Amino acid sequence: MSSHHIVRDKQEPALLIANGESCDPDLLGQLLEWNPFVVVLDKAIWRVLDLEIKVDVLLGDFDYQPDFELIRQRQYPIEIIHTPDQANTDLDKGIAFLIERGFPAVNIVWATGRRADHSISNMTNMVRHKNRIKIVMVDDHSKITPLVGAFEKWYAKGTPISLIPVGTVDGIVTEGLKYNLNDEALTLGYRTGNSNEAAEDGFVRIQYRTGDLLLMECWD
Amino acid sequence: MSSHHIVRDKQEPALLIANGESCDPDLLGQLLEWNPFVVVLDKAIWRVLDLEIKVDVLLGDFDYQPDFELIRQRQYPIEIIHTPDQANTDLDKGIAFLIERGFPAVNIVWATGRRADHSISNMTNMVRHKNRIKIVMVDDHSKITPLVGAFEKWYAKGTPISLIPVGTVDGIVTEGLKYNLNDEALTLGYRTGNSNEAAEDGFVRIQYRTGDLLLMECWD
Repeated sequence: MSSHHIVRDKQEPALLIANGESCDPDLLGQLLEWNPFVVVLDKAIWRVLDLEIKVDVLLGDFDYQPDFELIRQRQYPIEIIHTPDQANTDLDKGIAFLIERGFPAVNIVWATGRRADHSISNMTNMVRHKNRIKIVMVDDHSKITPLVGAFEKWYAKGTPISLIPVGTVDGIVTEGLKYNLNDEALTLGYRTGNSNEAAEDGFVRIQYRTGDLLLMECWD
Repeated sequence: MSSHHIVRDKQEPALLIANGESCDPDLLGQLLEWNPFVVVLDKAIWRVLDLEIKVDVLLGDFDYQPDFELIRQRQYPIEIIHTPDQANTDLDKGIAFLIERGFPAVNIVWATGRRADHSISNMTNMVRHKNRIKIVMVDDHSKITPLVGAFEKWYAKGTPISLIPVGTVDGIVTEGLKYNLNDEALTLGYRTGNSNEAAEDGFVRIQYRTGDLLLMECWD
């Protein structure tokens, strides 16, 4: 299905498809519903082509020398962007590309699962971009977002909410959680805010002083 | 299959089965080959019972009020240990239990994948136990171990090796990698040693001054 005739105003989040574990097709379908600008990272293109969804950009270092002719036969038009820089991951390069193109927000899928080194780097490297683009990473069990400034959102009672610090985060103050934090610090590996939850139907508020804090809504 | 008549001298690593994504049965089979002491965490017991492997200990907070009678019907004998403490994860409690029982080493499976909050906490919380028990976490794509002091191991050329700092790790010096570090720092979220590899057939040596460093051998 091609929808290239639709003019997009970049108000909708772009969709970035990385090279980790594939998500439930229904989840991908929901994210594609509003016809987002779609960027696919490197080798993930073969799995994406099989799904027959529209792709705007393929980005990667292409170390494995893919057959671009074959890709173009199956998906046309497609913009192919070569990013040979080895100092950053493909996901970083994908996010940087979307910032450069002026997108205010991105949803990221297929970035978790499979290789643990890629998975933990993808989850945590997001923080370096948090001030320039709104990021939500989703998989079949998780919705991850790096917090920027004060956070406030309505949740149903019992919604699982985990606060995961990337390094150390100081001065965390929360309201509306079952186990609230009162000007406390969290440190990855030593003290994280795992498996907290919304105390009541109502607003959860989170603020922190310094550091990088990931909000994770997860379910079994 | 029951092997409870075998006397174990605790020289072999124990096997801890957590509640993330199940691994390939062949991998589990390899880890069970030497008849390790097996600890299963909370709800994972139902998936483990279906595999018909021998379990020594079931450990958890049992918030969901499992039917212990049914478990004992399917696996006997089994030691059931209730750990209601909410400040630590089940995996932490499982590792602490094995330290207390005098095990020098543990292999951990099913601790990654599925919920991102559990996955990142499981990968990183290991570091708090690293000086008291040798830990290796494995899944179908990864072998993760927290380094303790200087590390040296022979690798075939091209073996993928990632160095993931839990927070900041200072004074890292490596030999034998394609991209060596020379008294450098790595910081999670900002600069990690992702997707490095053994430069030649030979020894890779890694040392660091302060912090917690995870060595990850991963494959697609």
